Amino acid sequence: MAEVPPTDEGWYVLHDFRTIDWDEWRETPEADRQRAIDEGVDYLNEQAAVEEGTTAVFSIIGHKADLLVLHLRPTLDAVSTAERAFERTALAGLTDQPTSYVSVTEVSGYVSDEYFQEDGEVDAGLERYIEGKLKPEIPDDEYVSFYPMSKRRGEEYNWYDLSFDERAEMMAVHGETGKGYAGKIKQIISSSVGFDDYEWGVTLFAAEPTDIKDIVYEMRFDDVSSKYGEFGSFYVGRRFPAEDLGAYLAG
Amino acid sequence: MAEVPPTDEGWYVLHDFRTIDWDEWRETPEADRQRAIDEGVDYLNEQAAVEEGTTAVFSIIGHKADLLVLHLRPTLDAVSTAERAFERTALAGLTDQPTSYVSVTEVSGYVSDEYFQEDGEVDAGLERYIEGKLKPEIPDDEYVSFYPMSKRRGEEYNWYDLSFDERAEMMAVHGETGKGYAGKIKQIISSSVGFDDYEWGVTLFAAEPTDIKDIVYEMRFDDVSSKYGEFGSFYVGRRFPAEDLGAYLAG
Amino acid sequence: MAEVPPTDEGWYVLHDFRTIDWDEWRETPEADRQRAIDEGVDYLNEQAAVEEGTTAVFSIIGHKADLLVLHLRPTLDAVSTAERAFERTALAGLTDQPTSYVSVTEVSGYVSDEYFQEDGEVDAGLERYIEGKLKPEIPDDEYVSFYPMSKRRGEEYNWYDLSFDERAEMMAVHGETGKGYAGKIKQIISSSVGFDDYEWGVTLFAAEPTDIKDIVYEMRFDDVSSKYGEFGSFYVGRRFPAEDLGAYLAG
Amino acid sequence: MAEVPPTDEGWYVLHDFRTIDWDEWRETPEADRQRAIDEGVDYLNEQAAVEEGTTAVFSIIGHKADLLVLHLRPTLDAVSTAERAFERTALAGLTDQPTSYVSVTEVSGYVSDEYFQEDGEVDAGLERYIEGKLKPEIPDDEYVSFYPMSKRRGEEYNWYDLSFDERAEMMAVHGETGKGYAGKIKQIISSSVGFDDYEWGVTLFAAEPTDIKDIVYEMRFDDVSSKYGEFGSFYVGRRFPAEDLGAYLAG
Amino acid sequence: MAEVPPTDEGWYVLHDFRTIDWDEWRETPEADRQRAIDEGVDYLNEQAAVEEGTTAVFSIIGHKADLLVLHLRPTLDAVSTAERAFERTALAGLTDQPTSYVSVTEVSGYVSDEYFQEDGEVDAGLERYIEGKLKPEIPDDEYVSFYPMSKRRGEEYNWYDLSFDERAEMMAVHGETGKGYAGKIKQIISSSVGFDDYEWGVTLFAAEPTDIKDIVYEMRFDDVSSKYGEFGSFYVGRRFPAEDLGAYLAG
Repeated sequence: MAEVPPTDEGWYVLHDFRTIDWDEWRETPEADRQRAIDEGVDYLNEQAAVEEGTTAVFSIIGHKADLLVLHLRPTLDAVSTAERAFERTALAGLTDQPTSYVSVTEVSGYVSDEYFQEDGEVDAGLERYIEGKLKPEIPDDEYVSFYPMSKRRGEEYNWYDLSFDERAEMMAVHGETGKGYAGKIKQIISSSVGFDDYEWGVTLFAAEPTDIKDIVYEMRFDDVSSKYGEFGSFYVGRRFPAEDLGAYLAG
Repeated sequence: MAEVPPTDEGWYVLHDFRTIDWDEWRETPEADRQRAIDEGVDYLNEQAAVEEGTTAVFSIIGHKADLLVLHLRPTLDAVSTAERAFERTALAGLTDQPTSYVSVTEVSGYVSDEYFQEDGEVDAGLERYIEGKLKPEIPDDEYVSFYPMSKRRGEEYNWYDLSFDERAEMMAVHGETGKGYAGKIKQIISSSVGFDDYEWGVTLFAAEPTDIKDIVYEMRFDDVSSKYGEFGSFYVGRRFPAEDLGAYLAG
Repeated sequence: MAEVPPTDEGWYVLHDFRTIDWDEWRETPEADRQRAIDEGVDYLNEQAAVEEGTTAVFSIIGHKADLLVLHLRPTLDAVSTAERAFERTALAGLTDQPTSYVSVTEVSGYVSDEYFQEDGEVDAGLERYIEGKLKPEIPDDEYVSFYPMSKRRGEEYNWYDLSFDERAEMMAVHGETGKGYAGKIKQIISSSVGFDDYEWGVTLFAAEPTDIKDIVYEMRFDDVSSKYGEFGSFYVGRRFPAEDLGAYLAG
Repeated sequence: MAEVPPTDEGWYVLHDFRTIDWDEWRETPEADRQRAIDEGVDYLNEQAAVEEGTTAVFSIIGHKADLLVLHLRPTLDAVSTAERAFERTALAGLTDQPTSYVSVTEVSGYVSDEYFQEDGEVDAGLERYIEGKLKPEIPDDEYVSFYPMSKRRGEEYNWYDLSFDERAEMMAVHGETGKGYAGKIKQIISSSVGFDDYEWGVTLFAAEPTDIKDIVYEMRFDDVSSKYGEFGSFYVGRRFPAEDLGAYLAG
Repeated sequence: MAEVPPTDEGWYVLHDFRTIDWDEWRETPEADRQRAIDEGVDYLNEQAAVEEGTTAVFSIIGHKADLLVLHLRPTLDAVSTAERAFERTALAGLTDQPTSYVSVTEVSGYVSDEYFQEDGEVDAGLERYIEGKLKPEIPDDEYVSFYPMSKRRGEEYNWYDLSFDERAEMMAVHGETGKGYAGKIKQIISSSVGFDDYEWGVTLFAAEPTDIKDIVYEMRFDDVSSKYGEFGSFYVGRRFPAEDLGAYLAG
């Protein structure tokens, strides 16, 4: 059997996608609309103000969703509570939940060898780096792309049948590609093994949407993606302040 | 033709997934909500109190379901009755059934050779072990992960074309991986061959959700999964006492 | 081109799956419920009493369906009429039709060589055997499993590219596996080539559901299934007398 | 690059599948039902009476559809107009459109070499044959089977990577199989390349439904299907005169 | 790792597909219909009149959609705004959004080598050519075909594992095929990497629909498509002036 990389986990993540029921929105009287907006803003602000973890809201383009409410929390229970709390708002009555994704932030031994060595000295820089991966901040006012992915277990190309070193080397090359986008792209990598239909969720943030396209395209040429990556649906949108919810709904 | 492993079966299993119709919930007057909760709690308690078998309820995170009602019964008819009895409750009117899974608990000759030998002496320990597999208890207050799976019949890697010994050896290695999680993970393995769309259902329980992630991830590197496993959707949640249904619905 | 097996056909078959709209059922006044039940029972009895062919009703477990109404008729038109006649009952208003399957009972030259030889003498026993395949009886009060299947046309394993003898030999082995279940399993094999999405429908009947699991599992190790079988969804349930429809709906 | 066969096109084709909303039908007062029938019959007769092209209606068995309205027209615009004109009838209010298929009748250089030679002499017989392919008549009162298909572009078996001669030879063998059904099967072959999700639509007509099964099954053994055919969903039904619409809806 | 082609991007693109809710349309009083049409026409005209970018409306044939509203804009935000502005019209209440596609116009180093050379001299002709790709005009009154596509990453044929030269040569051959349709076919190529489920969207325009069929069919024989192309759903329709919306809805 191939060697399993050590992993460490941080916050649990729920990508909670919502569509607006625009027909109902149009038929809702102004006062009820305002109440829906107010309760939605209050919900988003309360969730963002949790003691540990964070919540952010994004607009999503196209038919797959209108909103992404992204929750990060220290426990699965807190994620579950955040999801259900939304249903107590009047805003929820104007939305459906077409899809979602459950995962937990993760770092692995491919990425930071030392961190996982039993008697490894972890310096403060690495500590902060890992902390940023496990308890990430969500950048303000930036574009977002989310997609789930798995590693291929094909009859010819089987990620899980490779040696640790082969995998680690491909991950290192992949990391190098990523470094070319330092300052332009931030990412949250979260594992959904045992939790959802793919193995990982990838959430990318950028001030320029074309940087998202460029990094995903460039990485597709890396062996780790070209030979071993299997991708689900892609969602693109932009973060907005909770207070702008009314403006968003007004079109 | 390859040798077929002997199997023995215990209780039939229905994973009955339900979504809450939150729009209807919000519009339901308080008294009717309370009646729905009361009837739901009564239903869950009555089902859990059946003479043989058991029933438990779990919250599920994300859009795929809100509740999992897990029934184990000595006959398919008793499973069918349990499923339909739910429809007599007021709670049912607030839910939909987006998916489900039908199976029967199973032990096979890969796992316990002696148990299946015609004149094999089965000691009390093995007897209890097998009994625990066929008539499993559902642990209180733990996280759950459910997923269906089949063995691959690929053009290169075909589980059903391997010799019994090759299969048994891979299953043994898989079992060894599992033993590393003793005390952390409990599981129900149930066959759905001829009953549902995949060949088996796997239901994992853990006090720590990351243990679920870890065992599924580590096992994915076992040949039996890496080369021969095909997985359906994953559902994650947590068991709660029937009496907490009202609190769950209140958000 | 590979040699095509001769075939003979009997009755056309419709597997008409129905879900109960339980929300509507709960809201239907008692008198209207009774009318729905009465009309449903009358419909089922009338259909079962057709001059040629038969109709039976089964409960189905899980979300995929609640009822299977199985029609066998000498013509496609009679099948179509039976399907539409259901829509004239009050019961139909409480159901949806989530799926269905159209096929025709079939015997092929793999199974009974002599039957298809032009000047072959067909003795009375074989005649009765074939008749039982083409105009099958539906056993009372037994469990049912239905699934559609096709033969694989893979790039490596292509059923339609094998010689007749290779196919016939594998079918013979498959038949031997089946003989091990004589007295325990009855089956209807019907072709859906040109009629529905897979190539055949398989309908199994057994007094013990685990016999269904066992035969499907054991057969999966036969080359014909392990290398050449592609399976659709599986549905499991139990036949009940039309008169028990009210009891079924009452939960 | 492989040589592309020359093609010629005739009428555009819309397979417009409709389900009856039986719940609504049952609740519709008799007078409104009659109006729906009358407008439906008028629509079908008017469409069938277009100057160029034709329209026919078929019953379809099973859950996928209840009716197939088949339009052939000299332009895509005329097809679009025919589709939308249906929506002006009261009948449309009792139906949904679960699926459809857009294509154009086509002959190719595989089939009739001479027809496509620049200075080829096309005799009157071939002219009529081609005309019958491009502007086909729809046989009265016969069974219909529709399915879409594409040619496989597998990693091993890639139709588009074969030489013209290899393709032409397989098509010729396929044509020979078809000739065995002369007088029993009529067909419309229409290309949907660039128009719909598969590459061609196949519409078969027969007085005997088992002839449909037999030809599709026999052809599946031809290399062109066995190695290179990829099939979508199959729909089976029967043509009926527009005037019988009321009888059809009455069950 | 294989060399990544340089790319440049222009306008963001939203293919916004809409179905008409014909049942609701039929039940809408004439005055409200007229208001829906008026607001729809105003919306389309306002969107088409944006300072940078453009909007066009097309009829679509078959069940997948009735209308395609095609937006091109300099920013993703402007695309998002255009999508939501539609929801403020009364027309929106008569439509659903079954699907959509998000992308950005793109030119790549395969196509125009010089354009991407750092000190390359880009003459005015090439500049205009590139500008036409990145900020394309939508031809009036022509037929449209839209489909998404990806490059295959198969175990045998993996586009992303080829050398740049191999890819560039195949793209050049593909370009040659395209040149044979100069004057007959116009196209918009837009990347959806990181934005939507396939890697590119292809939007073809032609005065003759059979030219669309011919180019897609001929290109399918190019290695780049035959071995490396994976296609999603195809949509076909025709552009019409916003003012004709009422006539379109009238059937």
